[in-house]
Amino acid sequence: MKIDKLAGERFKEKPSDCVIDSHALMLRGGYMKNVANGIYSSFMPLRRITRKIENIIREEMDAIDGQEVQFPVVMPASLWAESGRYDSIGSELLRFTDRNDAPMVLGMTHEEAAVQLVREYANSYTKYPFMIYQVQTKFRDEARPRGGLIRVREFTMKDAYSFHTSQEDLERYYDICYKAYERIFARAGIPEVITVASDSGMMGGSVSHEYMLLSPVGEDSIAVCSECDYRANMEAAASIVENKCEGADEELKLVYTPDIHTIEDICNFLKTPLEESCKAVVYQKNMTDEYVVIFIRGDLDVNETKLTNYLGEAVHPGVITDDCGLFAGFIGPYGMDREKFTVLFDKSLENTHNLSCGANKPEHHYTGLKISRDIGEVEYIDLAKIKEGGICPKCGKHSITISRGIEVGNIFQLGTKYTKSMGMQYLDSDGNLQYPIMGCYGIGVGRLAASVCEAHHDEYGPIWPMSIAPWHVQICCLRADDSECKGVADSLYQKMLDDRMEVIYDDRNIRPGAMFSDADLLGVPVRVIVSPRNLKEGVCEIVTRDKTVSMTVEVDKVIETVKNMIEERLK
Amino acid sequence: MKIDKLAGERFKEKPSDCVIDSHALMLRGGYMKNVANGIYSSFMPLRRITRKIENIIREEMDAIDGQEVQFPVVMPASLWAESGRYDSIGSELLRFTDRNDAPMVLGMTHEEAAVQLVREYANSYTKYPFMIYQVQTKFRDEARPRGGLIRVREFTMKDAYSFHTSQEDLERYYDICYKAYERIFARAGIPEVITVASDSGMMGGSVSHEYMLLSPVGEDSIAVCSECDYRANMEAAASIVENKCEGADEELKLVYTPDIHTIEDICNFLKTPLEESCKAVVYQKNMTDEYVVIFIRGDLDVNETKLTNYLGEAVHPGVITDDCGLFAGFIGPYGMDREKFTVLFDKSLENTHNLSCGANKPEHHYTGLKISRDIGEVEYIDLAKIKEGGICPKCGKHSITISRGIEVGNIFQLGTKYTKSMGMQYLDSDGNLQYPIMGCYGIGVGRLAASVCEAHHDEYGPIWPMSIAPWHVQICCLRADDSECKGVADSLYQKMLDDRMEVIYDDRNIRPGAMFSDADLLGVPVRVIVSPRNLKEGVCEIVTRDKTVSMTVEVDKVIETVKNMIEERLK
Repeated sequence: MKIDKLAGERFKEKPSDCVIDSHALMLRGGYMKNVANGIYSSFMPLRRITRKIENIIREEMDAIDGQEVQFPVVMPASLWAESGRYDSIGSELLRFTDRNDAPMVLGMTHEEAAVQLVREYANSYTKYPFMIYQVQTKFRDEARPRGGLIRVREFTMKDAYSFHTSQEDLERYYDICYKAYERIFARAGIPEVITVASDSGMMGGSVSHEYMLLSPVGEDSIAVCSECDYRANMEAAASIVENKCEGADEELKLVYTPDIHTIEDICNFLKTPLEESCKAVVYQKNMTDEYVVIFIRGDLDVNETKLTNYLGEAVHPGVITDDCGLFAGFIGPYGMDREKFTVLFDKSLENTHNLSCGANKPEHHYTGLKISRDIGEVEYIDLAKIKEGGICPKCGKHSITISRGIEVGNIFQLGTKYTKSMGMQYLDSDGNLQYPIMGCYGIGVGRLAASVCEAHHDEYGPIWPMSIAPWHVQICCLRADDSECKGVADSLYQKMLDDRMEVIYDDRNIRPGAMFSDADLLGVPVRVIVSPRNLKEGVCEIVTRDKTVSMTVEVDKVIETVKNMIEERLK
Repeated sequence: MKIDKLAGERFKEKPSDCVIDSHALMLRGGYMKNVANGIYSSFMPLRRITRKIENIIREEMDAIDGQEVQFPVVMPASLWAESGRYDSIGSELLRFTDRNDAPMVLGMTHEEAAVQLVREYANSYTKYPFMIYQVQTKFRDEARPRGGLIRVREFTMKDAYSFHTSQEDLERYYDICYKAYERIFARAGIPEVITVASDSGMMGGSVSHEYMLLSPVGEDSIAVCSECDYRANMEAAASIVENKCEGADEELKLVYTPDIHTIEDICNFLKTPLEESCKAVVYQKNMTDEYVVIFIRGDLDVNETKLTNYLGEAVHPGVITDDCGLFAGFIGPYGMDREKFTVLFDKSLENTHNLSCGANKPEHHYTGLKISRDIGEVEYIDLAKIKEGGICPKCGKHSITISRGIEVGNIFQLGTKYTKSMGMQYLDSDGNLQYPIMGCYGIGVGRLAASVCEAHHDEYGPIWPMSIAPWHVQICCLRADDSECKGVADSLYQKMLDDRMEVIYDDRNIRPGAMFSDADLLGVPVRVIVSPRNLKEGVCEIVTRDKTVSMTVEVDKVIETVKNMIEERLK
């Protein structure tokens, strides 16, 4: 490829709407162009990168007996009604009708399609286990697409589905897939990806892991233990709280608290620590607007994912109206009508006493609350967010740190959620009908490309690993108007093409600075610079984009040297 | 791959709703499964075939300097409004709104997206020519999907767009692409594909060609001259008619014709040939329901594509109501109110006389009509279908035959339709703003797979060419319960895997007949049969799916022999 005909503009200025580096560099480097909010077209360099990623994924999926299949982008709503997700998923599932007014959806994931494809075929235990996967366009109507390819509406994803006749067999295969994923990320150039326990969310199932690239620009918060190997998405991390409950119980006492509206205010007013308060957090159920009041220790926050999972339905922050029976700023467990609202107690309130809390009437709080004495036996549920310096659920030390991460892949043990709801059964060896157990395994191709860029770039552009680089080597002819220089560069280019090397050639008559800027933005790992000055010595300069190599090589050794450098880096 | 875990059922019975062989065989062979009307999922064998086709196409597009890019499936309606196609295309363009009520479409073709991607980049003549292409899912909301993968709603297509600064350069590249397409179809196993001149339809532009696989199950009708190289889609073929106009002019005469309603009836009644009649065909414009009356020689039919192109808008067969002013069965040009309807005369009526025709009142016809005398000067337009035995527009002989064909690809000279409507311009070498000239080039991947199957199959299954076969070789172990037989087959399989050969292995404990039926349905080109009887002689049987080879080979020569057979067929 010659760069003078490579479609796509490269430019210096950082686009104003880019908050993360990979987004800015991919726009500046002519990798992609915005078509609509969260929808992009790819130019050739990005398409070459994503194809290489797709092929690495295919190789690793094939190596663990995956069968590549293809499901449609457009699916009938009836298929999603079978699993119940047509109703349970919100507006990120794009629904529409076709010309005959038949309701359809755009696939945002393909569990239903996978079950539909194999449910008649896999009717006997002898056909198990098996795994099918695809690399396919998906559409998720995100409310807030952001960060370039990190969170988009239309994306290409590899999704795999395995089918098993026992939980043990699923776990055996899950481990195999877990390792295949590690190989995929290592081959794509980010071996530093870690796995974290995750919440299964709308997918159903129990055990699941996310593969996270730790990055300050990540959208996920990850709890990592500095003392043991515990790592979990904050959404899934158990919050462990130790309450000492020392000293004598105080009496419950009504306090007049004018102009005090937050739990911080009341603790300041009373000069007590936040740990000795009982905070109320109010949500409403999305379907019915019914109020849900969570009581939690004043220093902690509610984890909405845990709350949604516990309730089994979606919620939104509560809007407290004048006539709802709740007094904003003064809500407390004592004297609250627990028939009227869903009232939940977080585990952080277990074994506490002498708490301050709202008194359910304006301008009043209580002090000295002891839930077991004043309210009675209640169920304590883990609804709190784990926090920095918190207790590790695995080793029990105060060793939790919170990091940011980009989720580059996930694997789920789905269980029988889809096979049961969609009526997929097989005859076991005893002739009994059983529901197969499923696993599912996803990787977003574009997001992986952007993540590699996040992990490997400098201020001038991406530094692509050889395995997914758009080209392996770039030739820069510094003086296209010098016939010897042009002749040598042309001949190197031709030889590389003849050797089927992946080469891009810049022989534009432009300043070296502009040429190198473009080369930096393309991020090709090996660069061969042909200049009249070096040719006087009979050499070319070979440098690597990651700056680890910078040397001169005799002209007739260039091809061999570059080939070796490429091979070494592809190992 | 071992066949006992290959997802997909293979069965003997022809599914009742299949009208063409490729559809029936692909369902019977476990290649695909219906998800909704005109929407399929692919099992592994079909996905391997389509991937190989995609890669052949990519290689040929790359070889003519194509840059692989990717456009989205979901596009904003505003992009299609720019070109005018948001309004001009009917309900096959699937329109919907996203969660923010923004109108969107599903891409059925990507001219708009191509222009959007490059219109800022390609702002100077120095950046031309270039070609971008993609392999992408598309959706066309067909009213009548049929024939399995021949006419579907969701499909994968390679679409390419070239941009030029002159018509000459477009034509130069068009020829290059023309030849690349011939290589693609030859490599995919159907070198017999022919090109025909075609109608550009909704794509705009002038010169265009379709690549047709002649097949009785094809949806297109093709006019082929047996005397010269003229070949055209019937939609685009000019209809040439020679009227002799011999003998004396008769007088116009009103005839009472009770119970006569068709042009055949009146000719029978009058005992005159159809060629001496003037038939009326009535349409209505889709937008306004305005009537369009076409007069045409009684032996010919109206070509709706020509009519639509002439009118510049879509039409449907007219519904003649009691009060519309037309009398079904008695419509004729004499005495018709040509202000009230759009009235058109086909070229076949030029230079005619003594015609019979309707009299525009019930139960009456005229005879002796001579248009130039009785009606005056009218414009004659070519609106007729060419017919079997008709005159070749190129050599002028009565040598036209009509064949059926499947359109497997098409190429268009688009001109400036999209660049003008979408405001894409470049500065030419004189500093003037110009609109680039475009070409576009499409191939449907799934339809090509089905076409190869139509061209190469027998009653037992597809006969895949080596280049796109799902696997290159299949091992059939005829007696899995015989340890020597199983041992030899296992070892051949392992050696082939070690040699990275594309092998599928059947070691199920089933009857040879059932095993061969399945193998026939998979259509793998080379088959190695391992049986106890042959092993007594120290040999295996090697046969080809196309029945041209059937031989026995010593066990330790099998791998080498098969390798050679594969290499030979991949050349």
